[in-house]
Amino acid sequence: MTITITAFERSPDRGNGLARDMRVRWALEEVGQPYDVRLLSFKAMQEPAHLALQPFGQIPTYEDGDLALFESGAIVFRIAERHAGLLPDDANARARAIAWMFAALNTVEPPVFDRALARILERDQPWYEQRLAALEDIIRKRLDGLSRRLGDADWLDGAFSAGDLLMVTVLRRLQGSDLLAEHPNISAYVARGEARPAYKRAFDAQLAVFTAASKG
Amino acid sequence: MTITITAFERSPDRGNGLARDMRVRWALEEVGQPYDVRLLSFKAMQEPAHLALQPFGQIPTYEDGDLALFESGAIVFRIAERHAGLLPDDANARARAIAWMFAALNTVEPPVFDRALARILERDQPWYEQRLAALEDIIRKRLDGLSRRLGDADWLDGAFSAGDLLMVTVLRRLQGSDLLAEHPNISAYVARGEARPAYKRAFDAQLAVFTAASKG
Repeated sequence: MTITITAFERSPDRGNGLARDMRVRWALEEVGQPYDVRLLSFKAMQEPAHLALQPFGQIPTYEDGDLALFESGAIVFRIAERHAGLLPDDANARARAIAWMFAALNTVEPPVFDRALARILERDQPWYEQRLAALEDIIRKRLDGLSRRLGDADWLDGAFSAGDLLMVTVLRRLQGSDLLAEHPNISAYVARGEARPAYKRAFDAQLAVFTAASKG
Repeated sequence: MTITITAFERSPDRGNGLARDMRVRWALEEVGQPYDVRLLSFKAMQEPAHLALQPFGQIPTYEDGDLALFESGAIVFRIAERHAGLLPDDANARARAIAWMFAALNTVEPPVFDRALARILERDQPWYEQRLAALEDIIRKRLDGLSRRLGDADWLDGAFSAGDLLMVTVLRRLQGSDLLAEHPNISAYVARGEARPAYKRAFDAQLAVFTAASKG
């Protein structure tokens, strides 16, 4: 039974690997599981067939036999639970890696995603500069905490884990901003994630989708 | 070995149970585990002793023997994994309950929390009305999806789970707004959560902390 995930037919990030299917692709590549991808238009994402899989009309989803899942964090966790390589064996280390998964998605991602959205949707508003500065203050506090904890380690808690995988995908949205550049250890951490062969295979796979759609 | 969690010495929500220790208290009450609480001032939350437990200087944390955790989602998951009552036994149902945990924290909470924050911090800003409307549009889309999926069921996927526990705590931030009232099934779902004896015990415990601090 092959795993099937869903992804954007034409990703709004133009193949930069910022869409949330990237996390799932990367996790599957880390554990060496093949997968199929079903591509969806924005219209198809709001139709009953997809809403039955994903109540909020988003991507990615995950189908494996009679199990259907949504939420990239939950899908990465499912993959990490079933296959070696993304969670430590030691029970306490495993719990801490899961804490970093939630930290990536519930503490770091919200302001980072808000900033990305504001840069698209609020750029022409008279308040844009002030709003951006407020968001960047919040992000700076988060990055200060992350940088202090990371120190000069390679990963957040021992070996590379699903927590690092999610955190790196979240931080990539800040690439090109001063926010990342202010913390050389975080910049190096992101680069370390991107240098993993599994990351590269996942990135190339999602880029190939966008490239094909652009030619089509 | 008794579990110790941290909470605000004087919660900014004035005992309304919106701070994130409420989730952890509720989960511990559901599974019948006693716990101690260490109360922290805002100053103490930024000091090295707490930052060693919580890199972002927030509450709650969780200490159990030689394990220290942060992130309310990860702590609730830890409790759910170790004790019966918050995750189904069936592997697929368990994975779906975990998906609802992530949906609560990564899809529903961010715009709900942004709205709460905007109502406090941005009320006097020139962009306030427009920003509030934009946030409420996003929240409405999330609630539409949630309401459609919930239908007339008691809980999101079969029996009450850690996914429902987190979702109810997130939705409580919308109480008193038209947003919840627009979906009678979601309002009833939140009320159903609040009616659980374990919820009430957790609520009373956090309220007692605020009441004592106000008298002190």
